[in-house]
Amino acid sequence: MNATIEQLLQHRSIRQFKATPLSSAETDCLLQVAQHGATSSFMQSYSIIHVSDPAKKAALAAIGKQPYIADAAMLLVFVADHHRNAQIASEKGKSTAIIGSMDYFLFATADAMIAAQTTTVAAESLDLGTVFLGSLNNDAQAVIDLLELPAHTFPVVGLAIGHPDQAPQLKPRLPRNQVVFENSYVQQANLVTQLSDYDEAVHQYYDLRAANQRVDHFTTQIAGAMDRRFEKRHELLAIAQKQGFLQY
Amino acid sequence: MNATIEQLLQHRSIRQFKATPLSSAETDCLLQVAQHGATSSFMQSYSIIHVSDPAKKAALAAIGKQPYIADAAMLLVFVADHHRNAQIASEKGKSTAIIGSMDYFLFATADAMIAAQTTTVAAESLDLGTVFLGSLNNDAQAVIDLLELPAHTFPVVGLAIGHPDQAPQLKPRLPRNQVVFENSYVQQANLVTQLSDYDEAVHQYYDLRAANQRVDHFTTQIAGAMDRRFEKRHELLAIAQKQGFLQY
Repeated sequence: MNATIEQLLQHRSIRQFKATPLSSAETDCLLQVAQHGATSSFMQSYSIIHVSDPAKKAALAAIGKQPYIADAAMLLVFVADHHRNAQIASEKGKSTAIIGSMDYFLFATADAMIAAQTTTVAAESLDLGTVFLGSLNNDAQAVIDLLELPAHTFPVVGLAIGHPDQAPQLKPRLPRNQVVFENSYVQQANLVTQLSDYDEAVHQYYDLRAANQRVDHFTTQIAGAMDRRFEKRHELLAIAQKQGFLQY
Repeated sequence: MNATIEQLLQHRSIRQFKATPLSSAETDCLLQVAQHGATSSFMQSYSIIHVSDPAKKAALAAIGKQPYIADAAMLLVFVADHHRNAQIASEKGKSTAIIGSMDYFLFATADAMIAAQTTTVAAESLDLGTVFLGSLNNDAQAVIDLLELPAHTFPVVGLAIGHPDQAPQLKPRLPRNQVVFENSYVQQANLVTQLSDYDEAVHQYYDLRAANQRVDHFTTQIAGAMDRRFEKRHELLAIAQKQGFLQY
């Protein structure tokens, strides 16, 4: 056990921020750390858009349907990026057809996520709060247009960072035996029954959580998620393909 | 600046491990931390296969064409997983068609990567070395078969962890102005020329690196990556679709 591990075990997403800005030293530090995670084949196939323009922050908050996005002291969008690689390869006379493979999309996405989680850990070590914004995929095309993302790029996730103005409880995680398997995946039957204690723990968590009306059980949430209604989220594959990804 | 940030700035991938095993307390700690990252909509749409069977470790080393995979004290495969969610939803009488969307594949992949990077940071804080294994995608179908991964799962990345038996130099990262953009993506021209100083820094890094023959420049590596020859890496989309993902 050490301070880093204690911090990682205490992770909570923060969805309410104070108006206090980050110092320029903090901003600089986070951007420096963001570049120091591992990347696939050392290609560094990601980019980060630091969104500081209040109008663009408001636009992203509208896309994500989460007003706190606009309140974040620092707002980053992590982008899977083979545009830079394609430019370099083209200048060297190489075909860039392979960037259309799922392989290349997947590892650029992985690079973007490693950078995003590295930034999250660094921010939390500075007593800042963070929340990932998968919600930007409510309208990925609007994000692409807003941030002027060129061919061979795709916005994977947003990250809002700021001084926490809430202190949520720690969310109970699934029992380890449902998530970690030894040597082979173990398919489970009667999961709703098996997870009844966990359902109750999640229910209590929501019941205790201040200013939150959701008192769901875990399995009810999972079942409910199958009805997700954001129509543009069903266009992501077409959008990624238009960006030159996932051709095969 | 603090100890966590100093550690993150010092990240290096480790590809040579001592034979020393991890203590059961270390193993337990890492698996606990792995579950404490953020997940999309709190669905926890990932699983971890802890591969301890020497025969399976050897098989994964052969797939990755990296003998050190078999030497890792702890070997994990992070899996995008909607199998558990599909089972829960089915038990509650819900259609699971939405799992075929790119949206659901993408956020499960993000969940797997957040867990993987969280584990990496925790391991490094315990003075362990780590290396991501994108190489398992050399033959994703073989990984699926070996680990008995069911429908609605996909192996995103491996992670080898152990006591370091090498002390590599820190790899120089791309200049920030090539990776971080303010408010809008900035497309660059003449990148090979712009990156000439960086090319030289990478060249010197490889030149100094012990026991390594590669003395490439960065832009030469990027151009060379366009010729990647692992044929089965071109089958990833078909494999993911066979697993029930990326139908639309």
